[in-house]
This record gives sequence, structure tokens and C-alpha cells, in this order.
Amino acid sequence: MSRLQEVYLGLDVGGTNIAGALVDKEGIIVKQVKLPTRAREGQDVVVSQMCRAITLLLGHAEQNEFYVQGIGMGIPGPVSVKEGISLHSPNLFWDNVPIRDIIQQQFSLPVAMDNDVRCAAIGEKFFGAGKVAKDVICVTLGTGVGSGIFINNHLFRGFRDIAGEIGHITMNPRGPKCNCGKNGCLEAYVGAPNISRRAKEAIFNQKYSVIVEMVNGNLADITPEMVHRAALAGDELAKNIIQETAELIGLALSYMANLFNPQLIIVGGGVARSGEMLINPIRDTIKANAMREHGKILTVVPAQLGEDAGMIGAAWLLNAD
Amino acid sequence: MSRLQEVYLGLDVGGTNIAGALVDKEGIIVKQVKLPTRAREGQDVVVSQMCRAITLLLGHAEQNEFYVQGIGMGIPGPVSVKEGISLHSPNLFWDNVPIRDIIQQQFSLPVAMDNDVRCAAIGEKFFGAGKVAKDVICVTLGTGVGSGIFINNHLFRGFRDIAGEIGHITMNPRGPKCNCGKNGCLEAYVGAPNISRRAKEAIFNQKYSVIVEMVNGNLADITPEMVHRAALAGDELAKNIIQETAELIGLALSYMANLFNPQLIIVGGGVARSGEMLINPIRDTIKANAMREHGKILTVVPAQLGEDAGMIGAAWLLNAD
Repeated sequence: MSRLQEVYLGLDVGGTNIAGALVDKEGIIVKQVKLPTRAREGQDVVVSQMCRAITLLLGHAEQNEFYVQGIGMGIPGPVSVKEGISLHSPNLFWDNVPIRDIIQQQFSLPVAMDNDVRCAAIGEKFFGAGKVAKDVICVTLGTGVGSGIFINNHLFRGFRDIAGEIGHITMNPRGPKCNCGKNGCLEAYVGAPNISRRAKEAIFNQKYSVIVEMVNGNLADITPEMVHRAALAGDELAKNIIQETAELIGLALSYMANLFNPQLIIVGGGVARSGEMLINPIRDTIKANAMREHGKILTVVPAQLGEDAGMIGAAWLLNAD
Repeated sequence: MSRLQEVYLGLDVGGTNIAGALVDKEGIIVKQVKLPTRAREGQDVVVSQMCRAITLLLGHAEQNEFYVQGIGMGIPGPVSVKEGISLHSPNLFWDNVPIRDIIQQQFSLPVAMDNDVRCAAIGEKFFGAGKVAKDVICVTLGTGVGSGIFINNHLFRGFRDIAGEIGHITMNPRGPKCNCGKNGCLEAYVGAPNISRRAKEAIFNQKYSVIVEMVNGNLADITPEMVHRAALAGDELAKNIIQETAELIGLALSYMANLFNPQLIIVGGGVARSGEMLINPIRDTIKANAMREHGKILTVVPAQLGEDAGMIGAAWLLNAD
């Protein structure tokens, strides 16, 4: 008699691809699939791509005698976890899609959903850099800026499941317009497109940067990754942009340190690929601005799971609360 | 056979007075005492005053067949709740006083302690303005500025019991020196002595204010209460100070709204006696700076228990976690 291995099915639904995986109780990916999202073709196509990814993974599970405990989905943009609804997802062109019930009707398994930032945080907390601690904040620096907060090993969601919105803390009420409609949010400075914009503005306003050559003078092509490479090459303008980015992130994280008194802050997301060049001044800024005791007990580390965090966390959703 | 009434004994230890009470399960004060703290006479005198207050209350309980369940104490300044130690209390001239064990050795009852801000928050949460909600932040505006955070009806303390330090959020890294050693903390602007200082500076720097007459030209005598009265009388300078105070508090509370997604924020403490004149612009600033969804579900109300909050909350300490 063979013993069935328990696994969880996670989907990370992005604007371009759907990444799906069977994940075991240790957070190890035992099978992985990737399908195009085809978001521009409409909601039904995205849903059928999601169902296809799930079906492929369930088929693999059956062949290998994996026992699938449930399905978890990470959806970009604001969601209502209680109702299982994607409220508004610019990347998927969705508004008010009751995606949990739609998927539940197709598969006789428990289904959970949350937004992609929180899923990535769950992955890092339980199977990545956060395994070692109970009181953890995992911040994701990408196009958007968000965080997942864990208190005594449980995900903290808030009254209406929208806690952790560090990206929309007002850093400067007279600052640049943010996607959320307000001005001067952290994300309006350090979200990936805004790092590019700030580099562009700095080049316009002042001086030489190697970035201009990198994009052959086409400043619209600047990416945060280029700013990072330029800074590595010693470019002053790029180094300033990264320093300023780190100081803004560090200041906002010092607020979280004072308010949540966490043991560990994990810094992840695409922008965090700048590594120690970004994380060191983030650490310094937190220490300089958090209360002494709060700073003393706090460790700040880079994320470990990279792009896998989202699907691993989605798979673990049913266990995270 | 008479039925014993269950009560809790709470002490609010201030720099001037020790307020003690027997409080029933509904948060009603059934007996109250007040003794001078005599803080300048040394730690032993303060402890013996605390013991005297407890003994008086226990005597009253015995006479009236109240069954005392335990003792809770609110101590000003940072504390270690787990160890039961007052780490540093400028008001009491204390450093590292293991007050929980000291009191425990005198009385054969369970003893709990926490700082005074958190005790006041517990009082308001469970028996004042916070009774109606589960996810509540109670901010105290006094000489110091702090908060108590309740998640699903439980006090949230953080990894080392020092969560909720809204008073030491950096509003401006180049701002005025704060008691905590950093610069530009919220408290460095809106703590009671700093409201007085800002009024004094504004008078020095610029123009006429009725406050000058209130203090007979002795600007060192300015109190926040005078600023409030001057503003009520239409004094422009005083109105500006209060507006600026409210905007700084509202901005910091908008961070808490985004991060904790609370249902209710309660504004208490001496400075909050300015009432709607302060709370209305606080509300406006939160709405303007929190994310739309976070602001929409949030209610901001004044505290209800006044100075009793501290001892009622101290009495309830053993039940608040």
C-alpha cells in the first residue's frame, strides 16, 4: 500500500503568465506549469487558462499519487478575501470578478484567494527568509509596493482584509501623483516605473549619466535594472537615485518598526534585486528613524524565493490565517 | 449565603498621584482611592504608597464581600511586560524596577503591569468608546504620545511588547529634537509641552496673540489648554497651532489606517480635550491621506472615560491579551 503525499496547488496569476505549482508541506515545488494569461482576450479566457493550469497539475498529482489538499490563487490588485472577489485588477482588466466561486464550481476542492503581494509574503514567511521568526513583515517592491504582516506566525489582514498598504503612506502631501489617486505616496517614488521616471527627471534636470548611453538617448526606455547597473558602474546620478529610493523605503519601514515591533523585515520584489546596494541604506535609515529598542531587535534581510514566492504562498493560503 | 461580586484592582501610577480603583466586570468603578505618589522621595516610598492604595482597596473589598481577581498596574514610561519591569520612568525617577514581583511578594494575588498609555487604551477599548468595535486603535495625546492597538478584541503588543509607538514616527528628519533622542518625531511637535513651545515660537516669530495677555507676557507659562481657549476666542495664531497639530496627528494616523486597517480610532489624552476643534481636522487629514477604502470604513471618535481610563484599563490588564 503506497502512502499518498499531501500537496497544495498554488497559482500566481500575473498580467503576462500564470505560474502554477504543486507544493508540498515543506514548501518544495514538486511540479510546476506556466501558461500565458492572455489577459487582453477577456475574463473568460483568463479563467479558462487558470482552469487549464489547475487541470494539468491535478492530472500530474493523480499520476504520482499526490493528494491535493486545496487550491490557492494570488491575484494582482485589491481583493475581497472574505467574498473571494477580485475587486479591481488593472493587469488582468478585471473588475469585481468572483474568482473564488468560479474556480470552486469547476473543482471539488477548497479554494482560497488573496492578492499577489500577500501570497508572496506568505511564501517568504513560511518557506523562505521568514521561517526563522514569528513576527515578520515582508515588503514587496515592484510596480506596486505592498507588504504582508505576520503576527505570531499568522497573517494579519485587518478589519476589511486591506492591512499592510505601506506603498500608499503619504511621504509628501505635495509629492507626485500616485496611481491610487493621492499625492506623494511611497509608491509614487519607489514603484518600479517611478524609479525610472525619477532617473529620467534627474537626467533632464541636470547632468551626465551613463544611463543615457544605455538607452541610446531614449529616456522612456529606462528601467530600474539599468539604474542599478549604472550605479554598480559608479554612475553618480544612478547612485543618488538608489540612495534616495532606499531612504524613502527605510523611512516608511521605520514607521512599521515602531508600530508593529517586528522581529524581522524581509525585502523582496523586482526592485529588491539591487541587493545590498539597496538594502544596506534601507537598514541604516530604519536604524536612524525607528526608536532605539525597536531598531535594536530588528533584522532586515533580502527575500530568498525570488519569483517562486507568489505560487508557493498561494499554495499555502489555506493554512496561513 | 451571599454571592461574592468579582472585581479587579487597578492602579494608575502617575508622577503626582496614584489613582486606584476596584472595577467590576462591566468596567464600573465600585470604589476609588487617590494617594500622592511622592516620587521625589525615592522608589521605596512610591512602592509603599502603591501598597497602601492596594491595602485600602482590599480592605474595602473584604468589608463589602467583593472577590478581588487580581491586581493590574499602569506605569509611565517604557516597560518590559514579560519581565514585569519598569525599564525607565522619568516621572517616577525609576530605572529597571521589577515592580510586578515587588507587588506580587506583598499580596497573594495575580499581578500584571503595562505602561500607562496601554492601560488607558485597554480601558477605552473594553469599557469606553471602543466597546462597539473589534479592530481598534486608541491614541493618547498627552505629555507623551502613544497608542494601544486591538486586533479582533485582543491587545497587540509586538515581538518585544513595544508596538504602537506612533509618537516616535519621524515626521521630519530635520525637525526639532525629541525626548527619545531622535529628531522630528510626532511627539516633538504635538506632545503637550511641544504644543506650548510651538505657540511660544510662533509668538516670538511673528504676531499678536491673545495668549500673551493670558500669561501676562510670561511665555513660559503657556499651556495647550490656553492655546485651546485662545482658539475658541478666535485667536488666529492659536487656531493655526491647533490646525497644524491636528494635521500632523492626522497624517500619522493615516499611516496607521493604511497599515492596520482598523474599524475605529479613538483619540484621548489631555490634549484631546480640545474636542471637535482638534478631532474634525484630524478626521479630514486621515481621509485625505489614507487609501480610499481604508478611510471609508474608518470612524474616528473622542475617548469617553477621561482620566478614569488608566485605572479601569489597569484593572482589566489580566484579561486584555
